[in-house]
Amino acid sequence: MKKIGVALLGCGVVGQAVYRALAGQSASIAARCGAVFEVKKIAVRNPKKKRDGIPAHLFTKSIAEAVAAPGVDIVVELMGGEEAAHKALLAAIRGKKHVVTANKLLLAKRGEEIFAEAVKAGVDIGFEASVAGAVPVIRTLKEAVASGKVNSLFGIINGTSNYILTNMMEKGVRFADALEEAQALGYAEADPTFDVEGIDAAHKLTILASLAFGTPVSLRNVYVEGISRLAPDDFRFARQFGRVIKLLATARMDGGKLDVRVHPAMVNVNRPIARVDGVTNAVELDVSDAGRLMLIGPGAGGDATASAVVADLADIARDMLSNSVGRIGPQGFLPQKRKKLAFKPIGDVSGGYYLRFTVDDKPGVLARMAGILGANGISIDSVIQKGRSGDPVPLVILTHEAKEKNIQTAIRKINQLPSTRAKTMLIRLENGG
Amino acid sequence: MKKIGVALLGCGVVGQAVYRALAGQSASIAARCGAVFEVKKIAVRNPKKKRDGIPAHLFTKSIAEAVAAPGVDIVVELMGGEEAAHKALLAAIRGKKHVVTANKLLLAKRGEEIFAEAVKAGVDIGFEASVAGAVPVIRTLKEAVASGKVNSLFGIINGTSNYILTNMMEKGVRFADALEEAQALGYAEADPTFDVEGIDAAHKLTILASLAFGTPVSLRNVYVEGISRLAPDDFRFARQFGRVIKLLATARMDGGKLDVRVHPAMVNVNRPIARVDGVTNAVELDVSDAGRLMLIGPGAGGDATASAVVADLADIARDMLSNSVGRIGPQGFLPQKRKKLAFKPIGDVSGGYYLRFTVDDKPGVLARMAGILGANGISIDSVIQKGRSGDPVPLVILTHEAKEKNIQTAIRKINQLPSTRAKTMLIRLENGG
Repeated sequence: MKKIGVALLGCGVVGQAVYRALAGQSASIAARCGAVFEVKKIAVRNPKKKRDGIPAHLFTKSIAEAVAAPGVDIVVELMGGEEAAHKALLAAIRGKKHVVTANKLLLAKRGEEIFAEAVKAGVDIGFEASVAGAVPVIRTLKEAVASGKVNSLFGIINGTSNYILTNMMEKGVRFADALEEAQALGYAEADPTFDVEGIDAAHKLTILASLAFGTPVSLRNVYVEGISRLAPDDFRFARQFGRVIKLLATARMDGGKLDVRVHPAMVNVNRPIARVDGVTNAVELDVSDAGRLMLIGPGAGGDATASAVVADLADIARDMLSNSVGRIGPQGFLPQKRKKLAFKPIGDVSGGYYLRFTVDDKPGVLARMAGILGANGISIDSVIQKGRSGDPVPLVILTHEAKEKNIQTAIRKINQLPSTRAKTMLIRLENGG
Repeated sequence: MKKIGVALLGCGVVGQAVYRALAGQSASIAARCGAVFEVKKIAVRNPKKKRDGIPAHLFTKSIAEAVAAPGVDIVVELMGGEEAAHKALLAAIRGKKHVVTANKLLLAKRGEEIFAEAVKAGVDIGFEASVAGAVPVIRTLKEAVASGKVNSLFGIINGTSNYILTNMMEKGVRFADALEEAQALGYAEADPTFDVEGIDAAHKLTILASLAFGTPVSLRNVYVEGISRLAPDDFRFARQFGRVIKLLATARMDGGKLDVRVHPAMVNVNRPIARVDGVTNAVELDVSDAGRLMLIGPGAGGDATASAVVADLADIARDMLSNSVGRIGPQGFLPQKRKKLAFKPIGDVSGGYYLRFTVDDKPGVLARMAGILGANGISIDSVIQKGRSGDPVPLVILTHEAKEKNIQTAIRKINQLPSTRAKTMLIRLENGG
């Protein structure tokens, strides 16, 4: 049985789960891919710290030592962050080691460079664990979608924000309270910015969109908006319209341009993705021939993420054993066959909008606002104006399809009216599919 | 660009869609796998029949001629059926052609032989299209599940019966009427036996279970029951219990033995698989490390099935280009590493049961039946006894977990009571997950 040496960079929850899987499931892994993996070195910040079940002699403080340790064929990067991980990955690749990484931030920011280096060095790079944990969405995009064109991609790919949104929807709590609960349960970090402001989802979306559409996608091509401004009122109104609010990562072709965004969206409750709750992740693909595929599963957690890492290791083992390294381009396309697509600026996209105005409860207010909307070419689908004790009151308008640019102009004008008492809340309706 | 020759055996809806994809999407396929596919010959019953967009000179009546045509590297079998397809596949394999097949019946009955022949001949065999159309479940089981053990597998893998059940559930219609509608829409065949009696699902389940558990699974290991005996009453009662009825294909490890079945099951309405309606297919995997994964998508249709065929072709092309044919064992395991698992007979399984008795509406009837159940070690969870005009009346009992053997004994005895007026209906409750 072929032995394959592995170096782990980082040994937190995921790293320890990878170690456990490689040590504890070696027979079943070997039965599948014909190789036994041996962890040769583990680079960590504090090598003195005891980690259950892992021999102390494996630990080192030196990334360079771990990467260059005798017998290491594959380097698994689980450090996270950008600079140090970037340096480590490039060192591994240039040292002709295959690499596996779960680092979505790094791939989002420097994926093009890293993939190109891997191709140049003739090594494999696995990154299934970088998006949606155990859900095999990278594999599906790279391999299962072979003939069809991806029309659109919808993802719930940040478990933290989905957990918070599910709680706000079900219990009617405020964002701050839902966040606090998520933090208490370990689902949200002390500084939750990356998760709740859509940045983590945007990192992952650049990876998925680049695989789906065969084009480089960088963070600046993604329109990003988080969930921290959502109020209990928005969830209540969503329910009245038969919708839920999800932080959706979407990418779709629209008139020859790629429209890539992460923002809260109101989704029809009958759509399967509306029912993906809690920390679960899901990706829905609309493919020209395959139809609508949906993959659902745990998006985080040590064991789930480790399972994706081990699947990548098994792929690389199979390539090593059959001398077919580089069999599939890192992005599912032959590198020279990827093309540069143009991106659609957010101002140019069209869709339906939920607008929650906060206004004085006086005659003529709705008429004036409707006038501004009309003057900007925006037609109204429905209005909810609820007599409520106290002033100001919420006034909710759902629009028919309108151009984002016009919506923004109208909102700016309405925000300046003396009868408007707070910044208007805008949530895009997701009616596709 | 490498050219790869393909022979199609069969050119119905799927075959024509494969041809269209290979001809129409050749640039995007080539961008992914580095090869261009050329259909060299198409074997059909009637070569004279015109098929839009396909040159007449490609057709032949002779399977042997198509397989042996100059330049053919891969044979795609889309004939269906057993004997002729078996002969054709073996001829192709022995002629050192790679093969792709959508033939679940053939793989269920003779898969072990065919896979062994492919390994012996050193050719690849793709069969993603044999189960759940475009849903990449074969790929997921062969490749994504690398470290974890599959605990259980639940599938809705027959679109016809799911369409009928969805209609019976939503509209309260009788089986015969729902079937007739499905036939009118082309979702059910003139002879619907394979679909509605669970046989097609059983074929597919043997394939999935064999990949998931790394063991040979033959049809006689599968307990099979269809949907034709279900009555509108059963759906009404299911709703009262917060459940829906699905034809579930399940395979799970239970006390070291494999429990493999296809039968109607009452599933909690909140479980995601309960919401897979119409002709859509879904497979849910519970994997020891990855957690609960669910794949949903179109299970049939020309384009969707063709997309799975083309994904297989692309895999084989990549293997041919990188000289890595046989890189993955046909069943996701090294052939010699598969093991023979024992199977659990249906009598030995345990679970909850829905029992609908048809009885005289007289005092003492329930007491007598409850006595028989109790004497067989079966405890009652809930009873619905509805005063209804007329005699006999339905009496419904949900049991706590009980052994199937005991349930069957009790039903036999209850069926013999003079107060029992029709054969008792039994539906298993699916409480797993």
